[in-house]
Amino acid sequence: MVEIIHTATLLHDDVVDESELRRGRQTANVAFGNAASVLVGDFLHSRAFQMMVAAGNPAAMRVLAEATSLIAEGEVLQLAHCHDSNVDEERYLQVIRYKTAKLFEAAARLGAVLGGGDDALESALGTYGGYLGTAFQIVDDMLDFSGDETEVGKRLGDDLAEGKPTLPLIYVLRHATPEQAAVVRQAIEQDGRALFPEVLAAVRASGALQRAQRLAERQVESAKEAIGALPDTKYKEALLEFALFAVQRTY
Amino acid sequence: MVEIIHTATLLHDDVVDESELRRGRQTANVAFGNAASVLVGDFLHSRAFQMMVAAGNPAAMRVLAEATSLIAEGEVLQLAHCHDSNVDEERYLQVIRYKTAKLFEAAARLGAVLGGGDDALESALGTYGGYLGTAFQIVDDMLDFSGDETEVGKRLGDDLAEGKPTLPLIYVLRHATPEQAAVVRQAIEQDGRALFPEVLAAVRASGALQRAQRLAERQVESAKEAIGALPDTKYKEALLEFALFAVQRTY
Repeated sequence: MVEIIHTATLLHDDVVDESELRRGRQTANVAFGNAASVLVGDFLHSRAFQMMVAAGNPAAMRVLAEATSLIAEGEVLQLAHCHDSNVDEERYLQVIRYKTAKLFEAAARLGAVLGGGDDALESALGTYGGYLGTAFQIVDDMLDFSGDETEVGKRLGDDLAEGKPTLPLIYVLRHATPEQAAVVRQAIEQDGRALFPEVLAAVRASGALQRAQRLAERQVESAKEAIGALPDTKYKEALLEFALFAVQRTY
Repeated sequence: MVEIIHTATLLHDDVVDESELRRGRQTANVAFGNAASVLVGDFLHSRAFQMMVAAGNPAAMRVLAEATSLIAEGEVLQLAHCHDSNVDEERYLQVIRYKTAKLFEAAARLGAVLGGGDDALESALGTYGGYLGTAFQIVDDMLDFSGDETEVGKRLGDDLAEGKPTLPLIYVLRHATPEQAAVVRQAIEQDGRALFPEVLAAVRASGALQRAQRLAERQVESAKEAIGALPDTKYKEALLEFALFAVQRTY
């Protein structure tokens, strides 16, 4: 169900962002049009809901209902932030905690809910998932500037073209030279696609990616801490590996 | 919840159909853009789901889960039918039973579910809602040709421009002169917006609207029959009035 919800949100995201490439292939909106992407996304959402109802676990339904609602809220919030160069780290983190981390949190929490874990385990796994998802999204936003297009499978600079004030840009605005900040401000506010080369140079020269990487790593440390009290099993080992992968990945 | 789901589907429908006018006002996609319409539609869907889960009535959830799933299926089916002049009455009816009538059916059925009615009442009301919704949509599709734009609040000819093979057109193809049929076929397949005046003339001259009206009235008769065994109360009276209104409305 989490996978179906995720796929549905990707279909709609790619319409909203007018993205052309995902996982190294044409997006559905390019291949089949916006109409099909919107409607098939709705279909997947409603099928996921139907599967949840059929499964009949009230606690699991509550977790997923809260998650889908906050994800949608995060997406709307992100849209409202587009072309706004005054978005700071705190507002950025709120958006990604909702739009991305909530689904990680729900997936991790559901492991405890469906496996019959107690409240403490549920809370620990939920916290782990939330930090993991936050780290994942910070790295995702970094890859728009630092990645290799073939490896990432998405078109670089797409976030900038949409006017999304992502973390590397926020760090340029806060820490770089006035000239670098001015370029980034103009790119967020209006000319993202055209100014991508200049913004890329500013992001790389200013140390913004290193700062963003450090914040992602701190999220991962918090994720690890959240499950620190769990017994040492191969399952815990896998969760710790996920966390490490989230900040080391290049795609 | 039914109203929220309905509003969410309208937001997405207007994006998919590129509609500019609804209820006599600019559509949300025109006023705020496609991105906002898609995301706010998702938000409303997820909030409705969250409210359903919070209400915690498994039977009601099943009704709404099935309905939203079939509505989405109907929308996808309708998209697949666009520009297809071979769609016949049966396939047309399947689409509108899913995309429109299922929500009427769910709303009517929920009255019995939440009011503690027995299975027979639930079934009777569900059947009533299904026929009512089918009649409603047939009339809706007629109004694209027969209505007054100010009164209808939607731009006339929008369905045709989208290449939707609606019932009046199916009747022209089946019953009108070869010349009238040829115009309608070309309009469905490619030039809906440009050929609207000619198609309008063919629809009006061929008796297609009268045939469609008769099918809508037969749906309403079936709706009335479905609740025939219910005790005579002011509530039943109101349901019968809804049914009458569905086929007499001009907006």
